[in-house]
Amino acid sequence: MTTTPVRYFEDFKPGDRFESERLTVTERLIVDYARLYDPQPFHTDPEAAKASIYGGLIASGGQTIALSFKLFLETGVLSACSLGSPGLDEVRWKAPIRPGDTLRVVAEVLETRPSASKPDRGIVRILYTTLNQRGEAVTSLIGNQLCRRRPAG
Amino acid sequence: MTTTPVRYFEDFKPGDRFESERLTVTERLIVDYARLYDPQPFHTDPEAAKASIYGGLIASGGQTIALSFKLFLETGVLSACSLGSPGLDEVRWKAPIRPGDTLRVVAEVLETRPSASKPDRGIVRILYTTLNQRGEAVTSLIGNQLCRRRPAG
Repeated sequence: MTTTPVRYFEDFKPGDRFESERLTVTERLIVDYARLYDPQPFHTDPEAAKASIYGGLIASGGQTIALSFKLFLETGVLSACSLGSPGLDEVRWKAPIRPGDTLRVVAEVLETRPSASKPDRGIVRILYTTLNQRGEAVTSLIGNQLCRRRPAG
Repeated sequence: MTTTPVRYFEDFKPGDRFESERLTVTERLIVDYARLYDPQPFHTDPEAAKASIYGGLIASGGQTIALSFKLFLETGVLSACSLGSPGLDEVRWKAPIRPGDTLRVVAEVLETRPSASKPDRGIVRILYTTLNQRGEAVTSLIGNQLCRRRPAG
């Protein structure tokens, strides 16, 4: 594991790219999430899912947002600067995620903008693309990330 | 509990409104989710969260998306027709959700559109607004819902 540099708002530039580690999604992970948060048969019941338009169990879209952000968080890129987020744009579920699929996230900075009202922070707009083991984009979304500015001195 | 009518794509009209039941968010629910999916101190550590800009523990944005959709699913409005979703737009985290807050969701149909390629389904665009016990909107998002058309006969 390489040491992650400490990044503040000023350290992000449009075009910066970051790649996450990989995570393999299990049937157990899909079903445990869906029972609590998205109890639809194609997310919770492997047998019923076979008869659905998906032909088998797929991960909840909410879970794929969560896993994508988790993979990115674990890069440490936001560790010094994250102040949370005011929202997401253009969440797109492009292809199903099935048990056994291995995901990784490529994050690209689209834009940075200092806060108009708060001098201690800025917004970094980041496009997250989640890919499976075949290199197919399964999910993409744009996150608006509140980031601390570099402390004076 | 009243019986939910069976709804297909044709049964949704712009302006239709649905209200969910209420759910009280606990510290345990916030921390359990965040440890798995959003391990930032203001979501996982009540003590560290006190020193953050939020002044205390707040729910992950991913969890608020998930809880909002779960509350809506439990109305049964989508039970007959849901075929999943291609994505979300304009996810906005407007105010923090803290332990003890009680959430409910108001869902409003914005638009309906038959699928251009698949005659068995259409898309229903729904604005979800999640309110706390003081009636403040804490989260809003637009979901694009794939819905089955009413079966012939």
